[in-house]
Amino acid sequence: MTRPIPAATVRRLPTYLRYLEEVGIRAGTVGSEEIAAATGGTAVQVRKDLSHLRYSGTRGVGYDIDLLAASIKKALGLDRTRRVALVGAGNLGTALAGYAGFAATGFDINAVYDKNPRRIGALIGGMTVGDIAQLVDDARRLPFEIGVIATPVSAAQAVADTMVQASIGAILNFAGVTVKVPDDVFVRNVDLSTEFRILSYYLSH
Amino acid sequence: MTRPIPAATVRRLPTYLRYLEEVGIRAGTVGSEEIAAATGGTAVQVRKDLSHLRYSGTRGVGYDIDLLAASIKKALGLDRTRRVALVGAGNLGTALAGYAGFAATGFDINAVYDKNPRRIGALIGGMTVGDIAQLVDDARRLPFEIGVIATPVSAAQAVADTMVQASIGAILNFAGVTVKVPDDVFVRNVDLSTEFRILSYYLSH
Repeated sequence: MTRPIPAATVRRLPTYLRYLEEVGIRAGTVGSEEIAAATGGTAVQVRKDLSHLRYSGTRGVGYDIDLLAASIKKALGLDRTRRVALVGAGNLGTALAGYAGFAATGFDINAVYDKNPRRIGALIGGMTVGDIAQLVDDARRLPFEIGVIATPVSAAQAVADTMVQASIGAILNFAGVTVKVPDDVFVRNVDLSTEFRILSYYLSH
Repeated sequence: MTRPIPAATVRRLPTYLRYLEEVGIRAGTVGSEEIAAATGGTAVQVRKDLSHLRYSGTRGVGYDIDLLAASIKKALGLDRTRRVALVGAGNLGTALAGYAGFAATGFDINAVYDKNPRRIGALIGGMTVGDIAQLVDDARRLPFEIGVIATPVSAAQAVADTMVQASIGAILNFAGVTVKVPDDVFVRNVDLSTEFRILSYYLSH
């Protein structure tokens, strides 16, 4: 019934939601200009993005903060929690597993895996690191929806293959290298070098 | 002399560069279709983005890989290294300080700071963690161009203020909360919760 939301809008909706959460989800209204100023866009863009939601404000009044936040959450499928498996129990994996901010947003990392015998069995973020060889079996019992790759470049493709085998539908890839997956698996790359390179442009201009 | 490159293009150029680095910077050519397929865009978009560079390929032949990579690096100001200060020596900071991928791309983290006395003096990524109270003085002797905030939410604004005082021109903010800085300081937020929320949409549709 609902039409797909353009990819660029999907990328911005979480930023708007974060702004609403920062001002405090409460009774009251907010204008597209305020949202734009806080999130680095234009009011026209904000209004266009929000027009894809079921609730899209009242002309001349603005957006009810509660309703808008609920509507963004609904559109993004945030009205339920997702089971997340993280692979790679190094520093980055440990940071992600212990990141308190995730639980607040409905994403709890539920299991951590590694292939290094010295890491398997260790306790990080309150979880015992499992053997990556167990991931597919574990997922058969209790499926994961999201996989997080926090391994070095050299291991990333093998981990992605294992996640696909485990029927994981979406992957957040921190490895800094492109992984190949079937078309029905959604991958989002978080490339920290890319972030530095974007900053570099603005330092030069 | 050079015109500013649109922000959306600046965000995509590092992704194209990463693709070129993965295929291997070498003699040979690559087409906009290949770049688009590997980076998740369209060939029209790629050609439009690359038209902002000094070198923009030869019609019917494609792009010389060497020249294209060099031209993207030039446009992004990657032909020099940048001094980077990282604040927050927890798990995430430690992961970032030890991330070998950065050095390869011209961004070495040069100094790490924290305010926690138990962390100050510790060795991470080959660096001794300094007292955040020293950052402004240190920057006076040897300026930093980029600051990385890897602290909890509660410390982020104070750290951003210190970075501004230290004349840092660009900030990469991992704290998951918006920080206020003067207009001439460029901030890029890497919000890991946002990434999960984007994935959630694609799991729901």
